[in-house]
Amino acid sequence: MTNPFETDLDKNAANFRTLTPLSFIERAASVFPDRTAVIHGEIRRSWSETYARCQRLASALTRHGLEKGETVAAMLPNVPAMIEAHFGVMMMGGVLNAINVRLDADAVAFILEHGEAKVLLTDREFSETIAGALAQIENKPFVIDVDDPVYDGGELLGQAEYEEFIAGGDPDFAWDWPSDEWNSCSLNYTSGTTGNPKGVVYHHRGAFLNSIGNMMVWAMPPHPIYLWTLPLFHCNGWCFPWTVAALAGTNVCLRRVEAAPIFEAIEKHGITHFCGAPIVLNMIANAPEQARRPLSHTVQAMTAGAAPPAAVIEAMESQGFSVTHVYGLTETYGPSVVSAWHPEWDGKPIADRAALKARQGVRYNVLEALMVADPETLQPVPKDGETMGEIFFRGNVVMKGYLKNPAATDEAFADGWFHSGDLGVWHEDGYVEIKDRSKDIIISGGENISSIEVEGILYRHPKVLEAAVAARPDSKWGESPCAFVTLKDGADADEAEIIEFCRDSMARFKVPRTVIFGPLPKTSTGKIQKFILRERAKELGERSDA
Amino acid sequence: MTNPFETDLDKNAANFRTLTPLSFIERAASVFPDRTAVIHGEIRRSWSETYARCQRLASALTRHGLEKGETVAAMLPNVPAMIEAHFGVMMMGGVLNAINVRLDADAVAFILEHGEAKVLLTDREFSETIAGALAQIENKPFVIDVDDPVYDGGELLGQAEYEEFIAGGDPDFAWDWPSDEWNSCSLNYTSGTTGNPKGVVYHHRGAFLNSIGNMMVWAMPPHPIYLWTLPLFHCNGWCFPWTVAALAGTNVCLRRVEAAPIFEAIEKHGITHFCGAPIVLNMIANAPEQARRPLSHTVQAMTAGAAPPAAVIEAMESQGFSVTHVYGLTETYGPSVVSAWHPEWDGKPIADRAALKARQGVRYNVLEALMVADPETLQPVPKDGETMGEIFFRGNVVMKGYLKNPAATDEAFADGWFHSGDLGVWHEDGYVEIKDRSKDIIISGGENISSIEVEGILYRHPKVLEAAVAARPDSKWGESPCAFVTLKDGADADEAEIIEFCRDSMARFKVPRTVIFGPLPKTSTGKIQKFILRERAKELGERSDA
Repeated sequence: MTNPFETDLDKNAANFRTLTPLSFIERAASVFPDRTAVIHGEIRRSWSETYARCQRLASALTRHGLEKGETVAAMLPNVPAMIEAHFGVMMMGGVLNAINVRLDADAVAFILEHGEAKVLLTDREFSETIAGALAQIENKPFVIDVDDPVYDGGELLGQAEYEEFIAGGDPDFAWDWPSDEWNSCSLNYTSGTTGNPKGVVYHHRGAFLNSIGNMMVWAMPPHPIYLWTLPLFHCNGWCFPWTVAALAGTNVCLRRVEAAPIFEAIEKHGITHFCGAPIVLNMIANAPEQARRPLSHTVQAMTAGAAPPAAVIEAMESQGFSVTHVYGLTETYGPSVVSAWHPEWDGKPIADRAALKARQGVRYNVLEALMVADPETLQPVPKDGETMGEIFFRGNVVMKGYLKNPAATDEAFADGWFHSGDLGVWHEDGYVEIKDRSKDIIISGGENISSIEVEGILYRHPKVLEAAVAARPDSKWGESPCAFVTLKDGADADEAEIIEFCRDSMARFKVPRTVIFGPLPKTSTGKIQKFILRERAKELGERSDA
Repeated sequence: MTNPFETDLDKNAANFRTLTPLSFIERAASVFPDRTAVIHGEIRRSWSETYARCQRLASALTRHGLEKGETVAAMLPNVPAMIEAHFGVMMMGGVLNAINVRLDADAVAFILEHGEAKVLLTDREFSETIAGALAQIENKPFVIDVDDPVYDGGELLGQAEYEEFIAGGDPDFAWDWPSDEWNSCSLNYTSGTTGNPKGVVYHHRGAFLNSIGNMMVWAMPPHPIYLWTLPLFHCNGWCFPWTVAALAGTNVCLRRVEAAPIFEAIEKHGITHFCGAPIVLNMIANAPEQARRPLSHTVQAMTAGAAPPAAVIEAMESQGFSVTHVYGLTETYGPSVVSAWHPEWDGKPIADRAALKARQGVRYNVLEALMVADPETLQPVPKDGETMGEIFFRGNVVMKGYLKNPAATDEAFADGWFHSGDLGVWHEDGYVEIKDRSKDIIISGGENISSIEVEGILYRHPKVLEAAVAARPDSKWGESPCAFVTLKDGADADEAEIIEFCRDSMARFKVPRTVIFGPLPKTSTGKIQKFILRERAKELGERSDA
């Protein structure tokens, strides 16, 4: 028997369109043509200007010979061209491959070759790396320099300059709506600490949906003034170029993430929202007096990339920032989990609030499922806040897979869930909390020690600016925690003081037996590079009790 | 050559889920289990309770024998069971057919037969109509009475009572995620003024998207307190049952839309948002003193269903309400167009602001295209604010089509656009403004007169509560405008005064030649029934100049 509800009620041009974030910029440009879309130094461009520039880019790429499904790489700081690339490349059916600007020539060469980039947008700042990368590869992309007036130095090494290149494009380029919302639109390489990076592929549908997911968890109003403290090459700026367009907001560019220009932008442009790793929040919370400006309004800060230490949340909130903690991976379009706030928690002491907020949280509305489960059996762990398991994701904001790597894709999606590799617990209220990456667990005398837990205590020490903990070989315990600590400017402390402080706050077996002072190695996105510290802790050799 | 971006990167259980608003309630119940989901009289239920009741309903329907793709009709006021039906029916794969409670037995009988309802939920208030409808039809649905404690009167006529029925269902019913997001989830009959009503079919994808569209245009924060002034049978309450779940808000039920209980609910429950036809706003704006309560916060009112007269917007905003004007049809999931506000308009005089806001506006982010075009050629009209054309929609929040009516579906979707039948102009800034339904145009001496324009002037008269204008046969002019006017309580005016007022504000040929005083006929959703007034104006007979 035919079901009348599924008969003569098919998709057609009137009632079905592929979901794509390109819809957002078309609307912003047509409904709010004169609102400021982008601010960069002296440059201010409206949404209609920005839209026309994106169309020019798409047109120029097409005229250059680029075809649908081909890759445009971009190694750029947070400049207007990088925002334009987030629309212009998709408009001509291309795939944007934003490259981490801190990578070395070898890594960039690998990515350009593996991603098969036909065009590369770059900036003088990275000319040395780019030259080194290009020298290594056979099928060189067509290189376009973005000659940013805000930056001095470096070389122009391309075959074209961006402004001239897009001037050759049609500002009314009639871009095609993507033929399928599953079509790829973006390629982001993971920062894999071992082996070659993997190319994470996003599609239009996921980009559309996670842009909306961001806006929902942050309750973003129309026309936010968004400061680009988060690198745009990081999961496409966590999808925020598209979110800001959907809300016809303003992108305020920032080449360098330092406290003084952040406070300046907040005051000058009325920044309402920004994102960044906890390290960025830490930098703001601990900014020297001369870099600070008073806040005339609450500024929304979204953080992810590592659990923000409760002390950092506490410091930010006491200074007039409101912190939203989110969690995700490159494979999940950036954040897709949020430490959703309950209004009734407002009355709790700030330390309790910060601890609640430091949990990773619950699924976005656009991520359909999240669980903590046994990595082997995929049986969910009890929601007891104690039992460790792996965090699994399922939904529309999980990547298509890894480019040209079906083995890794299959492994990541085994049993119909995305395996994050992050270890955590499931609290009674359904909130997930990361306890560690499996390799960050320290096993001491047979007991598991969460390096994150020890770090959380260290951050509470008034003299500590940053801390990371790794396993050091130990003659008696097998491993023991080794703390790497950066003190605040002008502060002074010795190993005994730090250890004493830890003893007061944690089980004896978790207390670091070694404390090393000095700066911590970090990735371009501000993540502390634990793998380097793990090596250093190993190189210290076996510790033996006195 | 294979494209690596579309190779080995297929959909799987980890990275693809069908879009459905059921995802929203699952999240609300798991993340905010204890927040209040529904308030109705003395009843207060949390999201976990409401979710369990929806699961019970789905389970009980399944146990009763209902199959996927079958119809559950509901003729209910705005009570908790109606909200539950918006999830429970979809959870078991059924299609919800919410029926307009003001319809007569014949119309209800037609709908039950045409929609092939297997189950009918109803309320004592409508027992007479339902009994009359059931008497006419052969394949009678299984009738379940919702025995609402808040209402006295009427009869229980069903084979089961709702509370008992769902008590037989499993509160942990494991509902299936819809197998396809194009699956039908809802059936809404148009209030067709001639001929039989048409059954508009919605799918899960559109319901998911327009729920989000609502939240975006209204910048809704988490946990809104939403008052049900809009009938839930009207385009599924404009998708707001799903929007409120997505935001884990609170549904405050209301059986009867009157000023006093609205003000009471605002004060008692802290209502933040409500929707309604302009008539509801008018009722609030003109509420008698004893019905009013002071507002302690700005209350957001969304209106659609007819262009709200500028005077009504003006009155509401001066009383502390913020009005958002939206536009759509049953065929577009309710509103899918918004008179999006530009912050720079804030400084304009209130009358100018009201006039700008009275325009229908621009597409939602989830509607992919909107245009005003020639109804024959589909050539867009110039954006001059003058040239009349028909309003066309295209996108994901356009219906699947009309149930068992491929001819009407094909006609509505001819040339790949949804033909709204509404006539309007396209302003220079891209905003659409309805000038009339084609049948509401008055042609007088060869000149087109927009009845809406004349009504807008009439509403500015200080003694006028409501007004509608229709064509009266005219010996000299062919047709001339006939005004039907309801005066405010205690006000007194005669035909000459109204005509004189109009003369001061419009071209001479547009001035009504006839004015009739008295109450106006309205639909259940508060729309003035122009077709009845057109008949009355005709029955007045041909007017001849003295």
